[in-house]
Amino acid sequence: MNSLRQFTRRRALQGLVASPTQSSSTIGLWQRHFSNTPAVASRLAGLDPSKLTVTKTSTPKELTPAKDLVFGKTFTDHMLAIEWSASDGWDAPRIVPYQNLSLDPSSCVFHYAFECFEGMKAYKDNNGQIRLFRPDKNMERLNKSSSRIALPTVDGEALTQLVGELVKLDSRFIPSDRGYSLYLRPTMIGTQKTLGVGPPGSALLFVIASPVGPYYPTGFKAISLEATDYAVRAWPGGVGDKKLGANYAPCIVPQLSAASRGFQQNLWLFGEEEYVTEVGTMNLFIALKDKETGQKELVTAPLDGTILEGVTRDSVLGLARERLVPKGWAVSERKIRMSEVADAADEGRLIEVFGSGTAAIVSPVRNISYKGKMVDCGLKEDEEAGEIASQMKNWIEGIQYGDEDHKWSYVL
Amino acid sequence: MNSLRQFTRRRALQGLVASPTQSSSTIGLWQRHFSNTPAVASRLAGLDPSKLTVTKTSTPKELTPAKDLVFGKTFTDHMLAIEWSASDGWDAPRIVPYQNLSLDPSSCVFHYAFECFEGMKAYKDNNGQIRLFRPDKNMERLNKSSSRIALPTVDGEALTQLVGELVKLDSRFIPSDRGYSLYLRPTMIGTQKTLGVGPPGSALLFVIASPVGPYYPTGFKAISLEATDYAVRAWPGGVGDKKLGANYAPCIVPQLSAASRGFQQNLWLFGEEEYVTEVGTMNLFIALKDKETGQKELVTAPLDGTILEGVTRDSVLGLARERLVPKGWAVSERKIRMSEVADAADEGRLIEVFGSGTAAIVSPVRNISYKGKMVDCGLKEDEEAGEIASQMKNWIEGIQYGDEDHKWSYVL
Repeated sequence: MNSLRQFTRRRALQGLVASPTQSSSTIGLWQRHFSNTPAVASRLAGLDPSKLTVTKTSTPKELTPAKDLVFGKTFTDHMLAIEWSASDGWDAPRIVPYQNLSLDPSSCVFHYAFECFEGMKAYKDNNGQIRLFRPDKNMERLNKSSSRIALPTVDGEALTQLVGELVKLDSRFIPSDRGYSLYLRPTMIGTQKTLGVGPPGSALLFVIASPVGPYYPTGFKAISLEATDYAVRAWPGGVGDKKLGANYAPCIVPQLSAASRGFQQNLWLFGEEEYVTEVGTMNLFIALKDKETGQKELVTAPLDGTILEGVTRDSVLGLARERLVPKGWAVSERKIRMSEVADAADEGRLIEVFGSGTAAIVSPVRNISYKGKMVDCGLKEDEEAGEIASQMKNWIEGIQYGDEDHKWSYVL
Repeated sequence: MNSLRQFTRRRALQGLVASPTQSSSTIGLWQRHFSNTPAVASRLAGLDPSKLTVTKTSTPKELTPAKDLVFGKTFTDHMLAIEWSASDGWDAPRIVPYQNLSLDPSSCVFHYAFECFEGMKAYKDNNGQIRLFRPDKNMERLNKSSSRIALPTVDGEALTQLVGELVKLDSRFIPSDRGYSLYLRPTMIGTQKTLGVGPPGSALLFVIASPVGPYYPTGFKAISLEATDYAVRAWPGGVGDKKLGANYAPCIVPQLSAASRGFQQNLWLFGEEEYVTEVGTMNLFIALKDKETGQKELVTAPLDGTILEGVTRDSVLGLARERLVPKGWAVSERKIRMSEVADAADEGRLIEVFGSGTAAIVSPVRNISYKGKMVDCGLKEDEEAGEIASQMKNWIEGIQYGDEDHKWSYVL
């Protein structure tokens, strides 16, 4: 039995991924692990950074010149890989040369979208130290995502530490220039080899890393949006607030459709009220003045299950409350109708609009096509960003690159 | 250039999957292919069965005894694999030994759920001929699914022919007994190697085959359902009517939750009206009498975008219109509230309820837990199926196994 077990394990290492056959007791075990009953959790192995093994590549890659970097296209020398099974819990973490995954074609990730991910970045500061930005938020969200689709959860601090080891090993890939960083993609997939639709009995958590340049290499470039009313990204009771693969593929055709009419992104509206939710893969912020009082307000959609809980969204909100409220701003997480935005624009009360996300930090919006009309978002013709968007980018980047000492910056 | 192309192709064959780097012109080409502009479609290669190559396994598997077959767990000796790229279209189809897929960890199928599939079966008739059931419907739906997530479409007849070649090659895996069949799983995945969210520049279509036994080996066994009101499977304007992986993973936790309370499946309700939509992974049929007129009616939810367009659903509807309407039944595709079903049960007007799907054909329902009450679905205590469910199973199985000559049966 022991030798059989070892044989299975060896095969798994060889092919990087192989999943054990689900035993009849798997579902029960999984459920208990999933619900984190302490008695069972202690029987299943947790993520253990002290068990990390590192296999270094024998063929280090040539660095891509910083100016040629394209988002998510080139990857570093290594990857982090950790297998999980419902019977044993988390296996020993491994850093291995970046390599293909070898998966049975019946693996549930290919059929039922058992997959979720995170997007985060590592930055090199002026002293050459490497920093992450609020990794605890990514870990928290990863666990919300994975548990919603019956994949296992992880100890966030342990995974952050392991991600740190990968980043340090591949730190030569992080350009030192401002705006450059190493994009990190923790991904969890179900590897159970059966077409039966059920909770995966095995999974693989892997992290790959891709050096990226600034989103706006030559300064901000405000974008044009098309408000989409014919397709719906997310709904109450659904999974639109989780970072699941399932939320992405269905967005491409509406995005292409908007692009064919010359818009950089589409803006997702929700319901008969046409509430503003998200833009492409970013959260959206709207700065406007109240019709009656003239009160300045920075608004973003609330976390009602239909929008992603963006880490940058949370950071913008936090900084706005800390630094804009004292200057007289109101900061609101509330539902806002597209018609309200259009009215504000018509009446000269729309100050600025910007998207927020890990890739660009903030992405200023010039205008939004809505019901055949262009809603002007308040930028002057020769302006590519409003004051708040510019401030936010500077504030957040200052923290990310360690210019400002801040609890959000995590030094490796 | 030509030799470089060949080198790339060879690598792809070796690893089974490798995706070309997306060129700057890819999106344009893809869009035109996607929208099937004749001029461009003719420049890209279509699916060509005459180019099929077959590599037979050198290690044929032992057959699993029919009684030990578990759905989707054992597979035949071979698989069909066809690669697609935005620049070249469909590559030559290949039947190869069943094997792992080797995919770059940045492949878009792992991150953004670029994946869709079909479920269909091959049956051995009394003369040893092999038959498919309405494969044209599966091909039609596959194309609806793939195009909704920016994956390529296929010539349905060509793919049916290729699936037929796989089935014939592995026909020894199809047990001859009634109720047994070879479950076929055409699957399309995006293989583009980039974390950028966009239309996949490359894809793999593969078909695997798994011998399966009867869903009810010892006769029908009526199931208990729990009506789910806290989670929502699909939404108008969403993708719940497509056979995307994205629709499946999010259903597991609600199903486990229902299972933990002793229910075999959950019943998805929609909206404040609590319309009955689907049950687990099946469509639902409800037979009831009208309160005023006593008219017998077989009802199923309409194709409004929130339910899957089941091939078995369509077959049940077709047979009901042909064979039940003359006997005085009304057949309706209409929205029906859960409360209407509960009222019919209370008033003794609920005749029977059953799910429909490829796996079980029909699956009789004994009762539904709804708002803390059990809705009795009309079966007598010693009965496991109603008359319509039993008739439907016999009718459809008679066509599938070729007892009845019918245009829905496709002889290979």
